[in-house]
Amino acid sequence: MRKKLFALAVLFLCAGGVSLFAQESIESLGFSLDVVWLFIGAILVFIMQIGFACVETGLTRAKNAINITMKNVMDFCFGAILYWAIGWGFMYGKDALGGLIGTDQFFNGPMAVDVENSGFYKSWFFQVVFAATAATIVSGAMAERTQFKSYLIYTCFISAVIYPISGHWVWGGGWLAEMGFHDFAGSTVVHSVGGWAALMGGVIVGPRLGKYVKGADGKISVKAFPGHNIPYAALGVLLLFFGWFGFNAASTGIATVGGGGIWSGLNIARVAVTTCLAAAAGAIGALIVSWSWFKKPDASMTLNGLLAGLVGITAPCAVVSPSASIIIGLIAGALVVGSVEFIDKVLKIDDPVGASSVHLTCGIFGTLAVGIWANVPEEGIVGLLHGGGLALLGVQLVGVLTVGAWAALTSLLLFLILKATTGLRVSHKDELMGLDLSEHKSEAYTGFQIFSNL
Amino acid sequence: MRKKLFALAVLFLCAGGVSLFAQESIESLGFSLDVVWLFIGAILVFIMQIGFACVETGLTRAKNAINITMKNVMDFCFGAILYWAIGWGFMYGKDALGGLIGTDQFFNGPMAVDVENSGFYKSWFFQVVFAATAATIVSGAMAERTQFKSYLIYTCFISAVIYPISGHWVWGGGWLAEMGFHDFAGSTVVHSVGGWAALMGGVIVGPRLGKYVKGADGKISVKAFPGHNIPYAALGVLLLFFGWFGFNAASTGIATVGGGGIWSGLNIARVAVTTCLAAAAGAIGALIVSWSWFKKPDASMTLNGLLAGLVGITAPCAVVSPSASIIIGLIAGALVVGSVEFIDKVLKIDDPVGASSVHLTCGIFGTLAVGIWANVPEEGIVGLLHGGGLALLGVQLVGVLTVGAWAALTSLLLFLILKATTGLRVSHKDELMGLDLSEHKSEAYTGFQIFSNL
Amino acid sequence: MRKKLFALAVLFLCAGGVSLFAQESIESLGFSLDVVWLFIGAILVFIMQIGFACVETGLTRAKNAINITMKNVMDFCFGAILYWAIGWGFMYGKDALGGLIGTDQFFNGPMAVDVENSGFYKSWFFQVVFAATAATIVSGAMAERTQFKSYLIYTCFISAVIYPISGHWVWGGGWLAEMGFHDFAGSTVVHSVGGWAALMGGVIVGPRLGKYVKGADGKISVKAFPGHNIPYAALGVLLLFFGWFGFNAASTGIATVGGGGIWSGLNIARVAVTTCLAAAAGAIGALIVSWSWFKKPDASMTLNGLLAGLVGITAPCAVVSPSASIIIGLIAGALVVGSVEFIDKVLKIDDPVGASSVHLTCGIFGTLAVGIWANVPEEGIVGLLHGGGLALLGVQLVGVLTVGAWAALTSLLLFLILKATTGLRVSHKDELMGLDLSEHKSEAYTGFQIFSNL
Repeated sequence: MRKKLFALAVLFLCAGGVSLFAQESIESLGFSLDVVWLFIGAILVFIMQIGFACVETGLTRAKNAINITMKNVMDFCFGAILYWAIGWGFMYGKDALGGLIGTDQFFNGPMAVDVENSGFYKSWFFQVVFAATAATIVSGAMAERTQFKSYLIYTCFISAVIYPISGHWVWGGGWLAEMGFHDFAGSTVVHSVGGWAALMGGVIVGPRLGKYVKGADGKISVKAFPGHNIPYAALGVLLLFFGWFGFNAASTGIATVGGGGIWSGLNIARVAVTTCLAAAAGAIGALIVSWSWFKKPDASMTLNGLLAGLVGITAPCAVVSPSASIIIGLIAGALVVGSVEFIDKVLKIDDPVGASSVHLTCGIFGTLAVGIWANVPEEGIVGLLHGGGLALLGVQLVGVLTVGAWAALTSLLLFLILKATTGLRVSHKDELMGLDLSEHKSEAYTGFQIFSNL
Repeated sequence: MRKKLFALAVLFLCAGGVSLFAQESIESLGFSLDVVWLFIGAILVFIMQIGFACVETGLTRAKNAINITMKNVMDFCFGAILYWAIGWGFMYGKDALGGLIGTDQFFNGPMAVDVENSGFYKSWFFQVVFAATAATIVSGAMAERTQFKSYLIYTCFISAVIYPISGHWVWGGGWLAEMGFHDFAGSTVVHSVGGWAALMGGVIVGPRLGKYVKGADGKISVKAFPGHNIPYAALGVLLLFFGWFGFNAASTGIATVGGGGIWSGLNIARVAVTTCLAAAAGAIGALIVSWSWFKKPDASMTLNGLLAGLVGITAPCAVVSPSASIIIGLIAGALVVGSVEFIDKVLKIDDPVGASSVHLTCGIFGTLAVGIWANVPEEGIVGLLHGGGLALLGVQLVGVLTVGAWAALTSLLLFLILKATTGLRVSHKDELMGLDLSEHKSEAYTGFQIFSNL
Repeated sequence: MRKKLFALAVLFLCAGGVSLFAQESIESLGFSLDVVWLFIGAILVFIMQIGFACVETGLTRAKNAINITMKNVMDFCFGAILYWAIGWGFMYGKDALGGLIGTDQFFNGPMAVDVENSGFYKSWFFQVVFAATAATIVSGAMAERTQFKSYLIYTCFISAVIYPISGHWVWGGGWLAEMGFHDFAGSTVVHSVGGWAALMGGVIVGPRLGKYVKGADGKISVKAFPGHNIPYAALGVLLLFFGWFGFNAASTGIATVGGGGIWSGLNIARVAVTTCLAAAAGAIGALIVSWSWFKKPDASMTLNGLLAGLVGITAPCAVVSPSASIIIGLIAGALVVGSVEFIDKVLKIDDPVGASSVHLTCGIFGTLAVGIWANVPEEGIVGLLHGGGLALLGVQLVGVLTVGAWAALTSLLLFLILKATTGLRVSHKDELMGLDLSEHKSEAYTGFQIFSNL
């Protein structure tokens, strides 16, 4: 009997061992799957850098093509180093001042680190591409007249300080997160921050020469400078669309089920659906508005409408239904056309690619859209239209205003200091010649006949 | 003794519990991995939209570059909304009429849906990009003379009705699926359907002005209109190649092992091998034929050959050996050169980018290739060359003919109605001026000196 | 009692069964995840082909754009077939001659193969894109004057013989692997091999007409031929950056934890961090050096600096810290500027895109960097700076020299034979006319006004 029991116990322990071992392996597998998922998300967001480069190059003039390309390449490069050295710590370091700022993990990365338990290694690549997105938005708005050198200084500052600190408030467990502010993938955290900096930059650097010309009658006429390569801009928009699937869907943070709910791998497919539909609706919205307003299906407006839909759905993508995502996209697409016209014709701020309209106007709209269309009662994220009252909308507004104030004021200050010190703008002569020749001493399209008087 | 037994039982139940828990987690993990896999597949197929845009833009003239780009962007946008609203239901809704059509799941997507069990959420993004591929094939064949507005109406119709209904027959569990028709990733379901619509569109809209000119001797001379940016077209072809790996490999539907067999994650790597080899062989086949026929290694023929290899391997990719995939690619590559010449010179149908040759001719060939080279006896998919006799080839032929008849007739009807109502073609004046200026009131390449008489 | 024991035993066996089943499923899931991971890695490395095509096209002249594009497309196509037929066997076949060469698995791929246990199916797609990377490096260095036909012969040879054999030494379990040579993702195996072939090709084919002109005073003046589309070249560099994340991170080979250590999914995130930082630092390094040396932030130098950082980190990416990766990137970026100038001005070897500087110079540096900065004591990979002494550095040097000698001598021989037989270079007349017109009888940019005298 004892023998038998003993044998049984041994067998049993083996089985238990296998079972526990299985459980352990499942956790390892889940970890591996999550790592792969964040990697996929990160490279998709990375490719948005290429999208921005193409859009901004295509929508500006041939004589500035090297300059705008180089700004897009180098803001990532400087931004990555700075976000590693400083930004990450401000954003994800140990919280201080009651949710206001992170305070450690600067210059990270000993080799002996326990990768499996290191938030830094697991998430840094995924985080740096978001930081770079915020940074690169600005280059378009300040295109064709901003000094290369000063732009590099700006990009270091936004990557190291401006973006990470407000990012900490929302994604680093800071005070806005505590308050219940919901920005799934960054309509506010990324796009509005970049959009505010873009708007401030555009104001401080001033319009391009010949953009707003006062006539003999005292009236100001607004000139359009068409982009030099619209298919290339469209390529950029489509690459942004492509990458945005990672931007939004991988903001679940994990591919595994985790705790279920919206921050779970279960939500990946849904986010892909709402992202896709909102972008499509955004393009359609802008197409309809521009077609009826300007009597033509305008390409750059429509392309910006697609981006507008994407920015608009970025905050609410995980908490709204497909039909709501279409409505959000349509509104964002219409909104961006109005915003571009308003900023250009009424405010007379020269934003060559419409960056502030796409990222700021629609970033604000998307953040507030959460307060209107959100519909996840089990997690307490319910907007106005689903009986949630004004509570969530109010919190969203607080986030929009405080992050906006932070980004606008710090970037305003930064550009004013740059203007007063290194200088922000190239000389008139250099601007007319084009920044490729004046700053980089080379031409983008050697061999092609290009009209130099543009 | 009892105590011991009791203790043993308790321990045992614990072990059993852990074991069952492990099993549950494994299922969750498998679900998550499959979601990630479909997401990867979907974004790869999505990037094929960019590929199509680049190819069609590069192979047509500079004066129509905005127009063709916009058509490629907007067919996805309208198509996505329509495929969500209507198409999905026709394709994957509850079967009716004995496998002929799906009948529910229109306007899908409440928030409270059980994502894990919802076929809609899990698969919609993956399915919509296939629908969009079929739709976008047509823009190239009808390029440079088709009204923007009418093209948008067409794209709504193919995405909502034409593609989903024949899609239901094969992938929605319809009558062709029942019959044993095998089209792994869509040589027929996607490419032939798009190819038929392209051919019909090309016929109804008629050739571009100056394409076929009758001389004094009554003979018709055929003019070539070279594309305005061959490297851009090549970029598009390579992006299509890139995305096609997702098109074919993710058509396993899952990354997990599932039931084993061809619709299993086990088959992913094999599909990648056959897809890669067939594409390479397709380019080589077209290169050899064009080099010996036209005495030059023709770029656009070779690029089309690469695509031909891809279309050809799309149906058989999971059921043929690497060496068979090379043979299929070589034949498809040679075939596309002959088909382009035949359609252009003999049929005198003007297809500016060779879309019908690539997608229709090689789509048919690829579907039949299953009946010749398939070699998976354990699943009953065995073609002629491996002792399967004519049975499978016969079924494949039935699929080619019925899906072809459906797609050809419905798109023919659609284009005839459009021609009679909204009009299908721009005016001669507008066509000569270019559709960018006439339809979109803007130029693609502002600042560049471009010959306007082309 | 017996009954109870029996019941217990039955229950127990059930539990054990479940547990074993769970374990089995975990293994299957792990296999599936690894397959997905290799697939992701492979498509990312595949997209580098597009990157190379864009870089090389953008940095050369408009009159050769079709030719260089076609070379980039076709070297992949021919290379894939040859690597399937022959190369794979030399690299991963059964070892012979004491680690010198693989000897079976040629013309692989019956259908009945056990996919799960077949190294060929699981890895071939991942391996072929590495082979194609080595092959395509050469096209840039020999651009604008090499016969299309001879280039195709070269590409077959490097894919079938040169790359696989030295690859076998390091990654196929050959003699260098035995010795402890560490090249994680291929600074030597891929980039130096391609770089040596590029350098030899450049020497044998000779400089472009007008590149080095002897003046009346006997002094040789060096002319620069600027590229015709810098934004397109930048697009290529960014696509290379994008794809390189797969090149390096997926060189773990698995996504699962495996045996832990550096060849484990645990290391994916770390590799992404070091790769990102080194590339960024490379661009910054080159920017600083070119700005202070040439008094301008040179675009093509900076872009090459980014690539230099990537090549430099390719060998050490898994064994160095983030801060070391920045140092490696900075040095590589500075190095590439010096190397480009040295090869162009001192050696007077005409390398139109700087391929040998990027891939050879920085490939050597990156391989040696392992011996200096490596810091994984638990796996015995410790470099000079972390107390490892000169042992590892010595081994790395042996690898650099032997692989270099193999690649240099075989490619030198190959190009000499080609020169003596089929001819390597086009006629002077054809070169002046441009290879697009002379070899492909077509123009890349029909409709654009291009200066033909360039």
